[in-house]
Amino acid sequence: MTDKTRTSSGFFVSAEAPIHTDNPIPTPSAPAPDILRCASMELVVTDLAASRQFYVDVLDLQVTQEDETTVYLRTMEEFIHHNLVLRKGPVAAVAAFSYRVRTPEDLDKAVAFYTELGCRVERRADGFTDGIGDSVRVTDPLGFPLEFFYEVEHVERLAWRYDLYSPGALVRLDHFNQVTPDVARATRFMQDLGFRVTEDIQDEAGTLYAAWMRRKPTVHDTAMTGGDGPRMHHVAFATHEKHNILAICDKLGALRRSDAIERGPGRHGVSNAFYLYLRDPDGHRVEIYTQDYYTGDPDNPVVTWDVHDNQRRDWWGNPVVPSWYTDASLVLDLDGNPQPLVARSDDNEMAVTIGADGFSYTRPADEDEMPAWKQGEYKLGHQL
Amino acid sequence: MTDKTRTSSGFFVSAEAPIHTDNPIPTPSAPAPDILRCASMELVVTDLAASRQFYVDVLDLQVTQEDETTVYLRTMEEFIHHNLVLRKGPVAAVAAFSYRVRTPEDLDKAVAFYTELGCRVERRADGFTDGIGDSVRVTDPLGFPLEFFYEVEHVERLAWRYDLYSPGALVRLDHFNQVTPDVARATRFMQDLGFRVTEDIQDEAGTLYAAWMRRKPTVHDTAMTGGDGPRMHHVAFATHEKHNILAICDKLGALRRSDAIERGPGRHGVSNAFYLYLRDPDGHRVEIYTQDYYTGDPDNPVVTWDVHDNQRRDWWGNPVVPSWYTDASLVLDLDGNPQPLVARSDDNEMAVTIGADGFSYTRPADEDEMPAWKQGEYKLGHQL
Amino acid sequence: MTDKTRTSSGFFVSAEAPIHTDNPIPTPSAPAPDILRCASMELVVTDLAASRQFYVDVLDLQVTQEDETTVYLRTMEEFIHHNLVLRKGPVAAVAAFSYRVRTPEDLDKAVAFYTELGCRVERRADGFTDGIGDSVRVTDPLGFPLEFFYEVEHVERLAWRYDLYSPGALVRLDHFNQVTPDVARATRFMQDLGFRVTEDIQDEAGTLYAAWMRRKPTVHDTAMTGGDGPRMHHVAFATHEKHNILAICDKLGALRRSDAIERGPGRHGVSNAFYLYLRDPDGHRVEIYTQDYYTGDPDNPVVTWDVHDNQRRDWWGNPVVPSWYTDASLVLDLDGNPQPLVARSDDNEMAVTIGADGFSYTRPADEDEMPAWKQGEYKLGHQL
Amino acid sequence: MTDKTRTSSGFFVSAEAPIHTDNPIPTPSAPAPDILRCASMELVVTDLAASRQFYVDVLDLQVTQEDETTVYLRTMEEFIHHNLVLRKGPVAAVAAFSYRVRTPEDLDKAVAFYTELGCRVERRADGFTDGIGDSVRVTDPLGFPLEFFYEVEHVERLAWRYDLYSPGALVRLDHFNQVTPDVARATRFMQDLGFRVTEDIQDEAGTLYAAWMRRKPTVHDTAMTGGDGPRMHHVAFATHEKHNILAICDKLGALRRSDAIERGPGRHGVSNAFYLYLRDPDGHRVEIYTQDYYTGDPDNPVVTWDVHDNQRRDWWGNPVVPSWYTDASLVLDLDGNPQPLVARSDDNEMAVTIGADGFSYTRPADEDEMPAWKQGEYKLGHQL
Repeated sequence: MTDKTRTSSGFFVSAEAPIHTDNPIPTPSAPAPDILRCASMELVVTDLAASRQFYVDVLDLQVTQEDETTVYLRTMEEFIHHNLVLRKGPVAAVAAFSYRVRTPEDLDKAVAFYTELGCRVERRADGFTDGIGDSVRVTDPLGFPLEFFYEVEHVERLAWRYDLYSPGALVRLDHFNQVTPDVARATRFMQDLGFRVTEDIQDEAGTLYAAWMRRKPTVHDTAMTGGDGPRMHHVAFATHEKHNILAICDKLGALRRSDAIERGPGRHGVSNAFYLYLRDPDGHRVEIYTQDYYTGDPDNPVVTWDVHDNQRRDWWGNPVVPSWYTDASLVLDLDGNPQPLVARSDDNEMAVTIGADGFSYTRPADEDEMPAWKQGEYKLGHQL
Repeated sequence: MTDKTRTSSGFFVSAEAPIHTDNPIPTPSAPAPDILRCASMELVVTDLAASRQFYVDVLDLQVTQEDETTVYLRTMEEFIHHNLVLRKGPVAAVAAFSYRVRTPEDLDKAVAFYTELGCRVERRADGFTDGIGDSVRVTDPLGFPLEFFYEVEHVERLAWRYDLYSPGALVRLDHFNQVTPDVARATRFMQDLGFRVTEDIQDEAGTLYAAWMRRKPTVHDTAMTGGDGPRMHHVAFATHEKHNILAICDKLGALRRSDAIERGPGRHGVSNAFYLYLRDPDGHRVEIYTQDYYTGDPDNPVVTWDVHDNQRRDWWGNPVVPSWYTDASLVLDLDGNPQPLVARSDDNEMAVTIGADGFSYTRPADEDEMPAWKQGEYKLGHQL
Repeated sequence: MTDKTRTSSGFFVSAEAPIHTDNPIPTPSAPAPDILRCASMELVVTDLAASRQFYVDVLDLQVTQEDETTVYLRTMEEFIHHNLVLRKGPVAAVAAFSYRVRTPEDLDKAVAFYTELGCRVERRADGFTDGIGDSVRVTDPLGFPLEFFYEVEHVERLAWRYDLYSPGALVRLDHFNQVTPDVARATRFMQDLGFRVTEDIQDEAGTLYAAWMRRKPTVHDTAMTGGDGPRMHHVAFATHEKHNILAICDKLGALRRSDAIERGPGRHGVSNAFYLYLRDPDGHRVEIYTQDYYTGDPDNPVVTWDVHDNQRRDWWGNPVVPSWYTDASLVLDLDGNPQPLVARSDDNEMAVTIGADGFSYTRPADEDEMPAWKQGEYKLGHQL
Repeated sequence: MTDKTRTSSGFFVSAEAPIHTDNPIPTPSAPAPDILRCASMELVVTDLAASRQFYVDVLDLQVTQEDETTVYLRTMEEFIHHNLVLRKGPVAAVAAFSYRVRTPEDLDKAVAFYTELGCRVERRADGFTDGIGDSVRVTDPLGFPLEFFYEVEHVERLAWRYDLYSPGALVRLDHFNQVTPDVARATRFMQDLGFRVTEDIQDEAGTLYAAWMRRKPTVHDTAMTGGDGPRMHHVAFATHEKHNILAICDKLGALRRSDAIERGPGRHGVSNAFYLYLRDPDGHRVEIYTQDYYTGDPDNPVVTWDVHDNQRRDWWGNPVVPSWYTDASLVLDLDGNPQPLVARSDDNEMAVTIGADGFSYTRPADEDEMPAWKQGEYKLGHQL
């Protein structure tokens, strides 16, 4: 962590630089499309009624349109047709991570950019889903199915319709999170695509365990998490306040569906946001998220967390459950077949922080100071 | 659980009745004192400066008075001299669970009530601590040091002093929680002392794992938790809102003291309150608590939770860390010596609910329905 | 305000004493019934469908039972049959302020107590409304229709049913507020009925403008407000948190019913609670209220506010709209006829605090210090 | 309001177009600088100690640097040197509305852009204030003093320092608000400067009363409010949640400074944000603001409010106090002299909505439906 300054909060800051990787994806000569924001995810679900119940009746996403095979959903503050598509299919997976671009011409740039990389690229003037016009889908060099679009049907922004708000109302799609074996390689490629790194997790050897990157000026539009991939780690929706997230937990308890809660609620170290992780009926992970910070200045300091800092993933030091590290959703190629996985070869975050050979600290070099009543097994963060 | 009605929330309700026990403490012929509320706890701490920092600088309790050996603290809405006394001593322990009674004459009743039971009783016209007048201390039949008082110095209620509030301001002492080997025997005795049972945890054989009981019309002034005792499980302070509790967690993270967080935050099943458990520098457990319900009607329904209901202690199904079950503070006799412990012989809640031989359910009889991704180790609630 | 101590918050505290009045209602020799709490109000409404829409669809009270003429409603944490009865009738009015008593025998006491006072008293073994058994209704010496009952049908307490909570969920009936010409006379009588005074508003001459009094240990079960009476000023329901109250405002805006908001939201000086006043379709005033303080100790300090303190009714100094002072609901006699009004002869709070002849201060004796930009009309608190 | 679509919330939406004005400021041929965001305001205050107390002790802004004449303040999430400069001076006024630009080269563009317009332009390589490097200040064609800078000293972002948060912590500078006589002319000019209009208030004749415009993707970086100008209407800081804003009100009450509260708290119609307006010791208006919505898509729908819609400025229909319409702060020229005011000649919002000749509605065409108890003076929104 050279050239990094330790802050009074324990993490480090530095100026953003191109991520070093020994195995880079070549930088295309074609310019990258100008991406506005993560805009939608298309999820393949195996039981559409069960998934609809989860996203509509439990999470109260608003239905823009639906038929027997597909449900189009949006958040309270959205004015484009959808932020989530549920499509019935044989294997639970992600069919598309969909980004909105600034202009129709950015689709031409997307085609050129990925074509130069040798990726499979498809373009449909009428879109791959309802509500969206001219679109491009690619399998990117990391194996993920991405969609780019500008044309979209406008629908009413329901932000002022407080008569429709539930206690846990979801107001925006906030970000994606992707699992990939080589985080440095993936992040370096995303920088070429125009993404800016805001935070990351490293060890003292410089191994990159995860990185967060953005187009819109929040902490991220997507993140790369180290693991066997390509897989989808989670899709995140924002609420206005923290109590909205607690209300979702309370409702799941009332519905006797508390086993949909995988991790949290808690405060992230990374991003400083308040969070909750759920699992949908297919096991797709959904984060509920609120209150990260503005990152839109070009010299926004990159925050680097030590992988051994016990507050990096939960600012309160609460343990990360193993399934959160190990489970993720398959992603599809453009023919709808699941992508094969490549194993991570770098160190594994769970292994280096918990369990017999891992370690974490609350305060640097404080293992000896830990109170006796805590030196046992009471937190997974110390001992699985 | 005969004569109990299952509610739509999964727990049972019934009319309160005297708790059955095979080994009762005799009911005194002398009437019980009329207890108003739990009012204060006297904690012996081994490092007064460290404890003062925790309760004053971190938790922002208000200092009424202090000297080199003792700190008297109160909550924002309190008008009596103190709710917590920190007294420097050689062994971390509880010196008194202090209750306020309705009239000065109730002290005479307390003396008679406990004297008839053969308990050691001491009365001091000038009180055992500053700020309190005529007081009675006893070692009760369960081995706990109780204090009763009416006379007390009034101090300013700082409820309107929002310039003094911190984001996590503690506004009231809410309750005590005591560890005792035989919960049925202890609770039956507390009924004789005039306490009303509001909730409990039982198994299908009627074994009582814990019971909550009140004088003031909240869910409890104290609770009995099964375990080796007599010990003090925790003392609880109330905040106004849930975000105040989250703010305490955030502040502990900022101070790099997140290892003071033992369990939570979360929503209790029992009491329906929002909670957080901390450990002070001596390991004394402090709960931060908000939003239980009114229980003051004489026919208030008793809520009984199945010990195997995974939402009984955390409505969101999050696991209870083992230390929460196993650790507790010593209590002192009237000479200041720690009370010896008696081991619990009834079934142990942790053993019957987690670990190889225990079980919990989210929905009754649903073990088979659990999603595949959850049948592993991801929640301590299912498998330690 | 002799024997009162000024606090650092600007108001005064003192020990409770019998209120002085030149015109007392005789104290009965019969003992007063032991009242537990305000439990329900019966409102006569002129358009049952409109009222049901307001209380059920807008405020989300839970329907226990209903037919063509009557709707029985309860709050989320209630276990008795109802907290509010809407009954269709020709004139909007209050048919009963209903209190629950501790035992069935307290009904005999209520009969004797009011009979001795020469009041009209009716008792019905089957109750005056569904869900309630043996009940007594009286027209009290102040002209108000009161009901007392113990027997009541238990229904499910929905406190844990978070799937039924709306963002502005009402969790308890908190209190009544009554308009009466002579506040001192009325309050003195309520003390005889066993109520304890918690706060009041006075001027330097000792004129009593309003008083708050309680049975359960909150700031009040009812209050007496000076004005032409007997009338009902408002009925108040509690939420858990302040954002719940804001959510009700937001929803009314979304429904284009913001003209139902009469005053607030704001922070009260008196009671320290957060509040909102609404008007139902008949103009009945409903307060939404949260976070007052515990008052259950017998020596709980009485808080006295100077009528000229601009923060007494709104801690933020926001003006009280005139209708809040002038409007109130008629009350019925036991035959269902509206009670005639007696005019207030003491000074009027609105007149002495706003308008040409009134005055208010933010800081004592600070009229000259007020910033120039504020010396105009900008706040009603200074000049109507 | 042609080509506008009425939404279910009562306002209208349309695509953004250049604002029509009969008296345009010429569009420069030089390209506009690329503005990132509103970044800081320099306020001249007449009593530095009093202002410091207000912004630091009451509002808890963080001091980056200070000396006898100047205090540099920032919000909890800021990483640049300051968001607010308090500078002691003889006349309360605004010395600079300061914007950060994307690159150092954008300063050259700013110089060219304003020079072409004939504006006075000054550039200082060492900045006009501490903490900022190469900067440009101009008096823009509307008479406002603007500053542009890129170089800035980085300081620690205190976002994670929850030990420093107060209950009302300010986390970001959100926006400015400017008073100008001709809103259409001013807004058209801001479009040339690269701002995008997000919302406005119009009447049926197309008169523009106010407009909101942004560079960062929130509802605004600045707004133009119709009135005698150039003046500064307010500067706004963001909190995380609504309760933070309520806490500021509570604290002002506790400090007996509630007369610093001018308007609110409330929910805006425009922007959908929760708000509070304060006046500092010099009368400078400060807004506290939270939770508007994302506006970063190029086709973000423009929201137009009818000036007669009573929920446009307060979604709950609460009245706007006259001082909020009439008062504003002087602005300085580059020599430090107050700019002379030009009177607004278009219709005045206060006059057309309240008072004898104005009108407002809660529901379109509903004047007759208003309940009788509301047809009087109870809301300023209807009758001053």
